[in-house]
Amino acid sequence: MSAASPIPFSTVTELTELAPGCFAAQLSDRWTIAGKPNGGYLLALLGKAAVSLDTHPHVIAASAHYLRSPEPGPVTVNVEVLRGGRSASQLRAWMAQDGRPCVEALITTSVLDADVEPYWDCGLPEPGTGAHEHAVRIPSVNPMGTPIAIMDQVELRIDPATLGFASGRPSGAGLLRGWLSLPAAEPFDPVSLLYAVDAFPPATFDIELTGWVPTLELTAYVRALPAPGPVRVLHRAQLVSGQLVDETCYVWDCAGRLVAQGTQLAAIRLG
Amino acid sequence: MSAASPIPFSTVTELTELAPGCFAAQLSDRWTIAGKPNGGYLLALLGKAAVSLDTHPHVIAASAHYLRSPEPGPVTVNVEVLRGGRSASQLRAWMAQDGRPCVEALITTSVLDADVEPYWDCGLPEPGTGAHEHAVRIPSVNPMGTPIAIMDQVELRIDPATLGFASGRPSGAGLLRGWLSLPAAEPFDPVSLLYAVDAFPPATFDIELTGWVPTLELTAYVRALPAPGPVRVLHRAQLVSGQLVDETCYVWDCAGRLVAQGTQLAAIRLG
Repeated sequence: MSAASPIPFSTVTELTELAPGCFAAQLSDRWTIAGKPNGGYLLALLGKAAVSLDTHPHVIAASAHYLRSPEPGPVTVNVEVLRGGRSASQLRAWMAQDGRPCVEALITTSVLDADVEPYWDCGLPEPGTGAHEHAVRIPSVNPMGTPIAIMDQVELRIDPATLGFASGRPSGAGLLRGWLSLPAAEPFDPVSLLYAVDAFPPATFDIELTGWVPTLELTAYVRALPAPGPVRVLHRAQLVSGQLVDETCYVWDCAGRLVAQGTQLAAIRLG
Repeated sequence: MSAASPIPFSTVTELTELAPGCFAAQLSDRWTIAGKPNGGYLLALLGKAAVSLDTHPHVIAASAHYLRSPEPGPVTVNVEVLRGGRSASQLRAWMAQDGRPCVEALITTSVLDADVEPYWDCGLPEPGTGAHEHAVRIPSVNPMGTPIAIMDQVELRIDPATLGFASGRPSGAGLLRGWLSLPAAEPFDPVSLLYAVDAFPPATFDIELTGWVPTLELTAYVRALPAPGPVRVLHRAQLVSGQLVDETCYVWDCAGRLVAQGTQLAAIRLG
Protein backbone atom coordinates (compact mmCIF):
# COMPACT_ATOMS: atom_id res chain seq x y z
CA MET A 1 0.00 0.00 0.00
CA SER A 2 1.53 3.33 -1.00
CA ALA A 3 1.77 6.18 1.49
CA ALA A 4 -1.19 7.79 -0.20
CA SER A 5 -3.51 4.78 -0.38
CA PRO A 6 -6.76 5.76 1.27
CA ILE A 7 -7.65 3.84 4.42
CA PRO A 8 -11.39 3.73 5.14
CA PHE A 9 -12.70 5.88 7.97
CA SER A 10 -14.24 2.75 9.50
CA THR A 11 -10.73 1.23 9.62
CA VAL A 12 -8.95 4.21 11.20
CA THR A 13 -11.70 4.36 13.83
CA GLU A 14 -11.63 0.66 14.70
CA LEU A 15 -12.04 -0.01 18.41
CA THR A 16 -10.97 -3.20 20.16
CA GLU A 17 -12.78 -3.76 23.43
CA LEU A 18 -10.34 -4.43 26.27
CA ALA A 19 -12.92 -4.34 29.06
CA PRO A 20 -16.46 -2.95 29.38
CA GLY A 21 -16.23 0.71 28.31
CA CYS A 22 -12.49 0.49 27.59
CA PHE A 23 -11.14 0.20 24.08
CA ALA A 24 -7.83 0.16 22.23
CA ALA A 25 -7.49 2.16 19.02
CA GLN A 26 -4.69 3.04 16.59
CA LEU A 27 -4.42 6.66 15.49
CA SER A 28 -3.48 6.55 11.83
CA ASP A 29 -0.34 8.43 10.78
CA ARG A 30 -2.19 9.29 7.56
CA TRP A 31 -5.12 11.05 9.21
CA THR A 32 -2.75 13.79 10.29
CA ILE A 33 -1.93 17.46 9.76
CA ALA A 34 1.77 18.23 10.20
CA GLY A 35 2.09 14.79 11.79
CA LYS A 36 -0.69 15.37 14.36
CA PRO A 37 -4.04 13.54 14.21
CA ASN A 38 -6.96 15.80 13.28
CA GLY A 39 -9.08 16.86 16.30
CA GLY A 40 -12.39 15.92 14.68
CA TYR A 41 -10.99 12.45 13.97
CA LEU A 42 -10.23 12.11 17.70
CA LEU A 43 -13.76 13.25 18.63
CA ALA A 44 -15.24 10.77 16.14
CA LEU A 45 -13.34 7.96 17.90
CA LEU A 46 -14.87 9.06 21.22
CA GLY A 47 -18.31 9.25 19.59
CA LYS A 48 -17.92 5.77 18.13
CA ALA A 49 -17.02 4.41 21.57
CA ALA A 50 -20.07 6.17 23.03
CA VAL A 51 -22.58 4.67 20.60
CA SER A 52 -20.96 1.24 20.99
CA LEU A 53 -22.36 1.16 24.53
CA ASP A 54 -25.86 0.78 23.07
CA THR A 55 -27.59 3.53 24.99
CA HIS A 56 -28.96 5.23 21.88
CA PRO A 57 -27.70 4.76 18.31
CA HIS A 58 -26.80 8.33 17.29
CA VAL A 59 -24.60 11.06 18.69
CA ILE A 60 -26.62 14.28 18.64
CA ALA A 61 -24.28 16.51 20.67
CA ALA A 62 -20.60 16.20 21.51
CA SER A 63 -18.32 18.67 23.28
CA ALA A 64 -14.59 18.05 23.40
CA HIS A 65 -11.85 19.85 25.29
CA TYR A 66 -8.37 19.12 23.94
CA LEU A 67 -5.69 18.59 26.56
CA ARG A 68 -2.64 17.59 24.51
CA SER A 69 -2.17 16.39 21.00
CA PRO A 70 -1.50 12.65 20.77
CA GLU A 71 0.99 11.13 18.32
CA PRO A 72 -0.13 8.61 15.72
CA GLY A 73 -0.12 5.14 17.27
CA PRO A 74 -1.89 3.31 20.06
CA VAL A 75 -4.35 5.04 22.37
CA THR A 76 -6.97 3.89 24.82
CA VAL A 77 -10.53 5.18 24.73
CA ASN A 78 -12.75 5.00 27.79
CA VAL A 79 -16.42 5.75 27.91
CA GLU A 80 -18.83 5.87 30.81
CA VAL A 81 -22.61 6.35 30.88
CA LEU A 82 -23.50 9.34 33.06
CA ARG A 83 -27.23 8.87 32.59
CA GLY A 84 -29.11 6.42 30.40
CA GLY A 85 -32.50 7.94 29.60
CA ARG A 86 -35.53 7.05 27.55
CA SER A 87 -35.16 9.63 24.79
CA ALA A 88 -31.50 10.60 25.27
CA SER A 89 -28.44 9.45 27.20
CA GLN A 90 -25.32 11.29 28.30
CA LEU A 91 -21.84 9.83 28.33
CA ARG A 92 -18.31 10.91 29.16
CA ALA A 93 -15.51 9.66 26.92
CA TRP A 94 -11.79 10.28 27.02
CA MET A 95 -8.68 9.26 25.13
CA ALA A 96 -5.27 8.64 26.65
CA GLN A 97 -1.85 7.83 25.23
CA ASP A 98 0.91 6.37 27.37
CA GLY A 99 -1.36 6.96 30.36
CA ARG A 100 -1.69 10.71 29.63
CA PRO A 101 -5.15 12.08 28.83
CA CYS A 102 -5.33 13.76 25.40
CA VAL A 103 -8.95 14.70 24.89
CA GLU A 104 -12.13 14.39 26.92
CA ALA A 105 -15.66 14.80 25.65
CA LEU A 106 -19.22 14.85 26.88
CA ILE A 107 -21.62 13.18 24.48
CA THR A 108 -25.41 13.08 24.25
CA THR A 109 -26.91 10.23 22.25
CA SER A 110 -30.46 9.83 20.98
CA VAL A 111 -32.30 8.56 17.91
CA LEU A 112 -32.35 10.63 14.73
CA ASP A 113 -35.38 9.93 12.57
CA ALA A 114 -34.41 9.37 8.93
CA ASP A 115 -37.66 10.84 7.63
CA VAL A 116 -37.97 14.03 9.67
CA GLU A 117 -38.40 17.27 7.76
CA PRO A 118 -36.99 20.52 9.18
CA TYR A 119 -39.81 22.49 10.83
CA TRP A 120 -38.31 25.98 10.87
CA ASP A 121 -35.02 27.71 10.20
CA CYS A 122 -33.80 31.25 10.02
CA GLY A 123 -30.46 32.92 9.73
CA LEU A 124 -28.64 29.81 8.55
CA PRO A 125 -26.09 30.60 5.86
CA GLU A 126 -26.83 29.41 2.34
CA PRO A 127 -25.17 26.11 1.48
CA GLY A 128 -23.85 27.67 -1.73
CA THR A 129 -24.26 26.61 -5.30
CA GLY A 130 -20.71 25.79 -6.41
CA ALA A 131 -20.58 22.43 -8.16
CA HIS A 132 -18.52 19.58 -6.69
CA GLU A 133 -16.61 19.10 -9.95
CA HIS A 134 -15.60 22.77 -10.09
CA ALA A 135 -14.21 22.78 -6.57
CA VAL A 136 -10.45 22.34 -6.22
CA ARG A 137 -9.06 19.39 -4.29
CA ILE A 138 -6.70 20.43 -1.51
CA PRO A 139 -3.32 18.73 -1.89
CA SER A 140 -1.43 16.98 0.90
CA VAL A 141 1.18 19.75 1.19
CA ASN A 142 -0.03 23.20 2.20
CA PRO A 143 1.18 26.53 0.77
CA MET A 144 3.79 26.73 3.55
CA GLY A 145 5.20 23.30 2.73
CA THR A 146 3.60 21.55 5.70
CA PRO A 147 2.55 17.95 5.05
CA ILE A 148 -1.22 17.47 5.40
CA ALA A 149 -1.31 13.69 4.97
CA ILE A 150 -5.04 13.53 5.67
CA MET A 151 -5.73 15.24 2.32
CA ASP A 152 -4.59 12.05 0.57
CA GLN A 153 -7.26 10.22 2.58
CA VAL A 154 -10.34 12.40 2.39
CA GLU A 155 -11.28 14.38 -0.69
CA LEU A 156 -11.59 17.97 0.46
CA ARG A 157 -12.55 20.35 -2.31
CA ILE A 158 -12.70 24.13 -1.93
CA ASP A 159 -14.96 26.35 -3.99
CA PRO A 160 -12.66 28.45 -6.24
CA ALA A 161 -14.42 31.61 -4.96
CA THR A 162 -12.98 31.00 -1.47
CA LEU A 163 -9.62 29.55 -2.53
CA GLY A 164 -7.61 32.78 -2.51
CA PHE A 165 -5.61 31.72 0.54
CA ALA A 166 -3.99 28.89 -1.44
CA SER A 167 -2.30 31.41 -3.73
CA GLY A 168 -1.48 33.90 -0.99
CA ARG A 169 -4.54 36.09 -1.59
CA PRO A 170 -6.94 35.56 1.30
CA SER A 171 -10.17 37.49 0.78
CA GLY A 172 -10.33 38.75 4.36
CA ALA A 173 -13.81 37.31 4.83
CA GLY A 174 -12.61 34.41 6.99
CA LEU A 175 -14.85 31.99 5.12
CA LEU A 176 -14.26 28.73 3.25
CA ARG A 177 -16.84 26.74 1.29
CA GLY A 178 -16.47 23.36 -0.31
CA TRP A 179 -17.10 19.67 -0.25
CA LEU A 180 -15.87 16.70 1.75
CA SER A 181 -15.88 12.99 0.93
CA LEU A 182 -14.57 10.09 2.98
CA PRO A 183 -12.11 7.60 1.40
CA ALA A 184 -13.72 5.23 -1.08
CA ALA A 185 -16.88 7.36 -0.90
CA GLU A 186 -17.89 5.77 2.41
CA PRO A 187 -21.24 7.34 3.39
CA PHE A 188 -21.23 9.77 6.31
CA ASP A 189 -23.01 8.87 9.54
CA PRO A 190 -23.38 10.76 12.83
CA VAL A 191 -19.94 9.56 13.99
CA SER A 192 -18.06 10.63 10.87
CA LEU A 193 -19.95 13.96 10.90
CA LEU A 194 -18.08 14.68 14.15
CA TYR A 195 -14.97 14.62 11.99
CA ALA A 196 -16.61 16.64 9.19
CA VAL A 197 -17.18 19.71 11.40
CA ASP A 198 -13.40 19.94 11.98
CA ALA A 199 -12.15 18.75 8.60
CA PHE A 200 -11.63 22.05 6.81
CA PRO A 201 -8.49 24.20 7.03
CA PRO A 202 -8.77 27.02 9.58
CA ALA A 203 -11.24 29.59 8.25
CA THR A 204 -8.68 32.15 9.41
CA PHE A 205 -6.47 31.12 6.44
CA ASP A 206 -8.88 33.33 4.49
CA ILE A 207 -7.72 36.22 6.73
CA GLU A 208 -4.02 35.47 7.00
CA LEU A 209 -1.95 32.32 6.61
CA THR A 210 -0.51 31.24 9.96
CA GLY A 211 0.90 28.11 11.47
CA TRP A 212 -1.17 25.54 13.27
CA VAL A 213 -4.46 26.77 14.80
CA PRO A 214 -4.95 24.25 17.61
CA THR A 215 -8.52 23.61 18.74
CA LEU A 216 -9.13 24.14 22.45
CA GLU A 217 -12.83 23.26 22.43
CA LEU A 218 -15.08 21.74 19.75
CA THR A 219 -18.85 21.29 20.02
CA ALA A 220 -20.77 19.41 17.35
CA TYR A 221 -24.51 18.95 16.92
CA VAL A 222 -25.73 16.28 14.53
CA ARG A 223 -29.15 17.32 13.24
CA ALA A 224 -30.10 14.66 10.69
CA LEU A 225 -28.98 11.39 9.14
CA PRO A 226 -27.08 12.33 5.99
CA ALA A 227 -27.92 11.08 2.52
CA PRO A 228 -25.02 9.13 0.92
CA GLY A 229 -22.54 11.23 -1.03
CA PRO A 230 -20.19 14.12 -0.41
CA VAL A 231 -21.24 16.79 2.09
CA ARG A 232 -21.12 20.54 1.54
CA VAL A 233 -19.22 22.48 4.18
CA LEU A 234 -19.16 26.15 5.13
CA HIS A 235 -16.50 27.01 7.68
CA ARG A 236 -16.19 30.56 8.94
CA ALA A 237 -14.41 32.59 11.58
CA GLN A 238 -16.35 35.09 13.69
CA LEU A 239 -14.05 36.93 16.10
CA VAL A 240 -10.27 36.97 16.46
CA SER A 241 -9.30 38.54 19.77
CA GLY A 242 -6.60 37.90 22.36
CA GLN A 243 -5.00 35.17 20.22
CA LEU A 244 -8.19 33.17 20.20
CA VAL A 245 -10.66 32.65 17.39
CA ASP A 246 -14.10 31.08 17.30
CA GLU A 247 -15.16 29.32 14.15
CA THR A 248 -18.52 27.90 13.12
CA CYS A 249 -19.01 25.10 10.64
CA TYR A 250 -22.15 24.02 8.80
CA VAL A 251 -22.44 20.69 7.01
CA TRP A 252 -25.18 19.86 4.50
CA ASP A 253 -25.77 16.54 2.82
CA CYS A 254 -26.02 16.43 -0.96
CA ALA A 255 -29.81 16.64 -0.66
CA GLY A 256 -29.32 20.13 0.85
CA ARG A 257 -30.28 19.22 4.42
CA LEU A 258 -28.28 20.68 7.29
CA VAL A 259 -26.90 17.57 8.96
CA ALA A 260 -24.30 18.93 11.37
CA GLN A 261 -23.07 22.14 12.94
CA GLY A 262 -19.83 22.76 14.76
CA THR A 263 -18.41 25.57 16.82
CA GLN A 264 -14.87 25.75 18.05
CA LEU A 265 -12.53 27.95 20.02
CA ALA A 266 -8.94 27.77 18.82
CA ALA A 267 -5.63 29.44 19.58
CA ILE A 268 -4.08 31.60 16.87
CA ARG A 269 -1.20 34.03 16.47
CA LEU A 270 -2.55 36.96 14.49
CA GLY A 271 -2.13 40.66 14.98
CA MET B 1 -36.78 39.50 53.19
CA SER B 2 -39.77 39.35 50.84
CA ALA B 3 -40.06 36.62 48.21
CA ALA B 4 -38.97 39.09 45.59
CA SER B 5 -35.96 40.57 47.38
CA PRO B 6 -33.00 40.23 45.07
CA ILE B 7 -30.22 37.97 46.33
CA PRO B 8 -26.80 38.79 44.87
CA PHE B 9 -25.37 36.43 42.28
CA SER B 10 -22.28 36.06 44.44
CA THR B 11 -24.54 34.79 47.25
CA VAL B 12 -26.52 32.26 45.21
CA THR B 13 -23.22 30.89 43.85
CA GLU B 14 -21.50 30.58 47.22
CA LEU B 15 -19.38 27.46 47.53
CA THR B 16 -18.33 25.89 50.83
CA GLU B 17 -15.28 23.68 50.48
CA LEU B 18 -15.88 20.23 51.97
CA ALA B 19 -12.64 18.66 50.72
CA PRO B 20 -10.12 19.56 48.00
CA GLY B 21 -12.16 19.95 44.81
CA CYS B 22 -15.46 19.18 46.55
CA PHE B 23 -17.92 21.90 47.49
CA ALA B 24 -21.38 22.30 48.95
CA ALA B 25 -23.75 24.84 47.39
CA GLN B 26 -27.40 25.86 47.81
CA LEU B 27 -29.47 26.26 44.67
CA SER B 28 -31.70 29.25 45.29
CA ASP B 29 -35.44 28.73 44.89
CA ARG B 30 -35.56 32.28 43.50
CA TRP B 31 -33.16 31.66 40.62
CA THR B 32 -35.72 29.37 39.02
CA ILE B 33 -38.04 29.04 36.05
CA ALA B 34 -41.22 27.11 36.84
CA GLY B 35 -39.49 26.00 40.03
CA LYS B 36 -36.37 24.64 38.28
CA PRO B 37 -32.98 26.32 38.60
CA ASN B 38 -31.80 28.00 35.38
CA GLY B 39 -29.23 25.93 33.43
CA GLY B 40 -26.78 28.80 33.00
CA TYR B 41 -26.87 29.39 36.75
CA LEU B 42 -25.86 25.74 37.24
CA LEU B 43 -23.02 26.11 34.73
CA ALA B 44 -21.84 29.27 36.48
CA LEU B 45 -21.60 27.33 39.75
CA LEU B 46 -19.41 24.74 38.01
CA GLY B 47 -17.30 27.53 36.49
CA LYS B 48 -16.87 29.19 39.87
CA ALA B 49 -15.70 25.89 41.36
CA ALA B 50 -13.25 25.50 38.45
CA VAL B 51 -11.59 28.89 38.88
CA SER B 52 -11.45 28.38 42.66
CA LEU B 53 -8.81 25.69 42.02
CA ASP B 54 -6.37 28.43 41.01
CA THR B 55 -5.22 26.98 37.72
CA HIS B 56 -6.01 30.12 35.72
CA PRO B 57 -8.33 32.94 36.79
CA HIS B 58 -10.86 33.04 33.93
CA VAL B 59 -13.17 30.53 32.31
CA ILE B 60 -12.76 30.93 28.54
CA ALA B 61 -14.73 27.87 27.38
CA ALA B 62 -17.31 25.72 29.14
CA SER B 63 -19.44 22.88 27.76
CA ALA B 64 -22.22 21.42 29.84
CA HIS B 65 -24.42 18.39 29.24
CA TYR B 66 -27.57 18.38 31.37
CA LEU B 67 -28.51 15.03 32.85
CA ARG B 68 -31.48 15.84 35.08
CA SER B 69 -32.85 19.03 36.51
CA PRO B 70 -32.04 19.49 40.21
CA GLU B 71 -34.50 20.97 42.69
CA PRO B 72 -33.67 24.12 44.63
CA GLY B 73 -31.70 23.19 47.75
CA PRO B 74 -28.40 21.57 48.60
CA VAL B 75 -26.09 20.17 45.94
CA THR B 76 -22.47 19.11 45.81
CA VAL B 77 -20.06 20.40 43.18
CA ASN B 78 -16.91 18.49 42.33
CA VAL B 79 -14.11 19.71 40.13
CA GLU B 80 -10.99 17.96 38.93
CA VAL B 81 -8.02 19.30 36.96
CA LEU B 82 -7.56 17.25 33.79
CA ARG B 83 -4.47 19.19 32.69
CA GLY B 84 -2.86 22.22 34.24
CA GLY B 85 -0.98 24.06 31.50
CA ARG B 86 1.05 27.22 31.15
CA SER B 87 -1.38 29.24 29.07
CA ALA B 88 -4.60 27.27 29.66
CA SER B 89 -5.91 24.49 31.89
CA GLN B 90 -8.75 22.02 31.44
CA LEU B 91 -11.04 20.85 34.20
CA ARG B 92 -14.03 18.57 34.63
CA ALA B 93 -16.79 19.70 36.98
CA TRP B 94 -20.05 18.10 37.95
CA MET B 95 -23.01 18.76 40.21
CA ALA B 96 -24.98 16.14 42.11
CA GLN B 97 -28.07 16.23 44.30
CA ASP B 98 -28.92 13.40 46.68
CA GLY B 99 -26.05 11.48 45.10
CA ARG B 100 -27.52 11.75 41.58
CA PRO B 101 -25.51 13.63 38.93
CA CYS B 102 -27.41 16.61 37.47
CA VAL B 103 -24.98 18.34 35.14
CA GLU B 104 -21.42 17.75 34.05
CA ALA B 105 -19.17 20.23 32.28
CA LEU B 106 -15.73 20.48 30.73
CA ILE B 107 -14.09 23.81 31.37
CA THR B 108 -11.01 25.51 29.93
CA THR B 109 -9.48 28.30 31.99
CA SER B 110 -6.91 30.89 30.94
CA VAL B 111 -6.15 34.58 31.45
CA LEU B 112 -8.22 37.21 29.67
CA ASP B 113 -6.32 40.44 29.14
CA ALA B 114 -8.39 43.47 30.18
CA ASP B 115 -6.79 45.70 27.55
CA VAL B 116 -6.93 43.53 24.46
CA GLU B 117 -8.61 45.00 21.39
CA PRO B 118 -10.46 42.71 18.96
CA TYR B 119 -8.22 42.02 15.95
CA TRP B 120 -10.80 40.94 13.39
CA ASP B 121 -14.45 40.04 13.17
CA CYS B 122 -16.92 39.25 10.44
CA GLY B 123 -20.44 37.99 10.29
CA LEU B 124 -21.21 38.78 13.92
CA PRO B 125 -24.72 40.14 14.33
CA GLU B 126 -25.08 43.80 15.24
CA PRO B 127 -25.56 44.40 18.97
CA GLY B 128 -28.55 46.60 18.19
CA THR B 129 -29.24 50.16 19.14
CA GLY B 130 -32.32 49.88 21.38
CA ALA B 131 -31.85 51.90 24.56
CA HIS B 132 -31.86 50.17 27.94
CA GLU B 133 -34.57 52.47 29.27
CA HIS B 134 -36.89 51.71 26.34
CA ALA B 135 -36.60 47.95 26.78
CA VAL B 136 -39.40 46.24 28.71
CA ARG B 137 -38.65 44.35 31.88
CA ILE B 138 -39.85 40.74 31.80
CA PRO B 139 -42.15 40.02 34.76
CA SER B 140 -41.90 36.98 37.01
CA VAL B 141 -44.99 35.34 35.56
CA ASN B 142 -44.92 34.41 31.87
CA PRO B 143 -47.81 34.80 29.39
CA MET B 144 -48.90 31.22 30.16
CA GLY B 145 -49.06 31.90 33.90
CA THR B 146 -45.86 30.04 34.73
CA PRO B 147 -43.86 31.54 37.61
CA ILE B 148 -40.42 32.73 36.48
CA ALA B 149 -39.06 33.68 39.91
CA ILE B 150 -35.62 34.50 38.50
CA MET B 151 -37.09 37.61 36.79
CA ASP B 152 -37.51 39.19 40.23
CA GLN B 153 -33.76 38.64 40.73
CA VAL B 154 -32.14 39.71 37.49
CA GLU B 155 -33.38 42.60 35.42
CA LEU B 156 -34.06 41.18 31.97
CA ARG B 157 -35.31 43.75 29.51
CA ILE B 158 -36.49 42.95 25.99
CA ASP B 159 -36.32 45.39 23.10
CA PRO B 160 -39.94 46.28 22.22
CA ALA B 161 -39.19 45.36 18.59
CA THR B 162 -38.73 41.70 19.58
CA LEU B 163 -41.37 41.57 22.31
CA GLY B 164 -44.28 40.33 20.19
CA PHE B 165 -44.29 36.93 21.87
CA ALA B 166 -45.33 38.50 25.19
CA SER B 167 -48.63 39.58 23.67
CA GLY B 168 -49.15 36.40 21.62
CA ARG B 169 -47.74 37.85 18.40
CA PRO B 170 -44.34 36.22 17.79
CA SER B 171 -42.64 37.69 14.73
CA GLY B 172 -41.54 34.32 13.40
CA ALA B 173 -37.90 35.44 13.25
CA GLY B 174 -36.89 33.39 16.32
CA LEU B 175 -34.87 36.30 17.69
CA LEU B 176 -34.86 38.21 20.97
CA ARG B 177 -32.77 41.27 21.81
CA GLY B 178 -32.41 43.03 25.09
CA TRP B 179 -30.44 43.74 28.21
CA LEU B 180 -29.49 41.84 31.33
CA SER B 181 -28.38 43.10 34.75
CA LEU B 182 -27.50 41.12 37.86
CA PRO B 183 -29.21 41.95 41.18
CA ALA B 184 -27.98 45.16 42.79
CA ALA B 185 -26.13 45.93 39.55
CA GLU B 186 -23.32 43.50 40.46
CA PRO B 187 -20.76 43.69 37.61
CA PHE B 188 -20.51 40.71 35.30
CA ASP B 189 -17.38 38.57 35.28
CA PRO B 190 -16.44 35.46 33.28
CA VAL B 191 -18.35 33.22 35.74
CA SER B 192 -21.60 35.20 35.64
CA LEU B 193 -21.32 35.45 31.83
CA LEU B 194 -21.82 31.66 31.82
CA TYR B 195 -25.25 32.45 33.22
CA ALA B 196 -25.82 35.35 30.81
CA VAL B 197 -25.63 33.14 27.70
CA ASP B 198 -28.60 31.12 29.01
CA ALA B 199 -30.56 33.88 30.73
CA PHE B 200 -33.00 34.86 28.00
CA PRO B 201 -36.35 33.16 27.32
CA PRO B 202 -36.15 30.56 24.54
CA ALA B 203 -35.65 32.36 21.22
CA THR B 204 -38.28 29.97 19.90
CA PHE B 205 -40.91 31.97 21.84
CA ASP B 206 -40.58 34.38 18.91
CA ILE B 207 -41.75 31.50 16.67
CA GLU B 208 -44.42 29.92 18.86
CA LEU B 209 -45.06 29.90 22.59
CA THR B 210 -44.46 26.45 24.05
CA GLY B 211 -43.79 24.92 27.43
CA TRP B 212 -40.35 24.44 28.86
CA VAL B 213 -37.50 24.17 26.33
CA PRO B 214 -34.95 22.13 28.32
CA THR B 215 -31.30 22.57 27.41
CA LEU B 216 -29.48 19.36 26.55
CA GLU B 217 -26.09 20.93 25.82
CA LEU B 218 -24.74 24.43 26.40
CA THR B 219 -21.34 25.71 25.26
CA ALA B 220 -20.11 29.15 26.29
CA TYR B 221 -17.01 31.05 25.20
CA VAL B 222 -15.95 34.07 27.23
CA ARG B 223 -14.06 36.41 24.93
CA ALA B 224 -13.28 39.47 27.05
CA LEU B 225 -13.57 40.91 30.56
CA PRO B 226 -16.80 42.90 30.59
CA ALA B 227 -17.04 46.57 31.52
CA PRO B 228 -19.33 47.17 34.53
CA GLY B 229 -22.98 47.69 33.70
CA PRO B 230 -25.79 45.83 31.99
CA VAL B 231 -24.95 43.60 29.05
CA ARG B 232 -26.72 43.54 25.71
CA VAL B 233 -27.96 40.13 24.61
CA LEU B 234 -29.04 38.75 21.26
CA HIS B 235 -30.53 35.28 21.45
CA ARG B 236 -31.66 33.52 18.30
CA ALA B 237 -32.83 30.15 17.07
CA GLN B 238 -31.33 28.63 13.93
CA LEU B 239 -32.95 25.30 13.10
CA VAL B 240 -35.95 23.50 14.61
CA SER B 241 -36.01 19.88 13.45
CA GLY B 242 -36.95 16.57 15.03
CA GLN B 243 -38.09 18.30 18.27
CA LEU B 244 -34.66 19.80 18.77
CA VAL B 245 -33.58 23.40 18.34
CA ASP B 246 -30.16 25.01 18.37
CA GLU B 247 -29.90 28.55 19.65
CA THR B 248 -26.99 30.97 19.62
CA CYS B 249 -26.52 33.81 22.06
CA TYR B 250 -24.26 36.85 21.84
CA VAL B 251 -23.45 39.04 24.82
CA TRP B 252 -21.88 42.50 24.55
CA ASP B 253 -20.81 44.72 27.40
CA CYS B 254 -22.10 48.27 27.54
CA ALA B 255 -18.92 49.44 25.79
CA GLY B 256 -20.06 47.41 22.76
CA ARG B 257 -17.46 44.65 23.06
CA LEU B 258 -18.51 41.05 22.43
CA VAL B 259 -17.75 39.42 25.78
CA ALA B 260 -19.44 36.03 25.49
CA GLN B 261 -21.06 33.69 23.01
CA GLY B 262 -23.24 30.69 23.71
CA THR B 263 -24.65 27.88 21.66
CA GLN B 264 -27.15 25.35 22.89
CA LEU B 265 -29.14 22.36 21.77
CA ALA B 266 -32.52 22.09 23.44
CA ALA B 267 -35.59 19.88 23.24
CA ILE B 268 -38.81 21.47 22.00
CA ARG B 269 -42.31 20.39 20.98
CA LEU B 270 -43.13 22.33 17.82
CA GLY B 271 -44.72 21.21 14.58
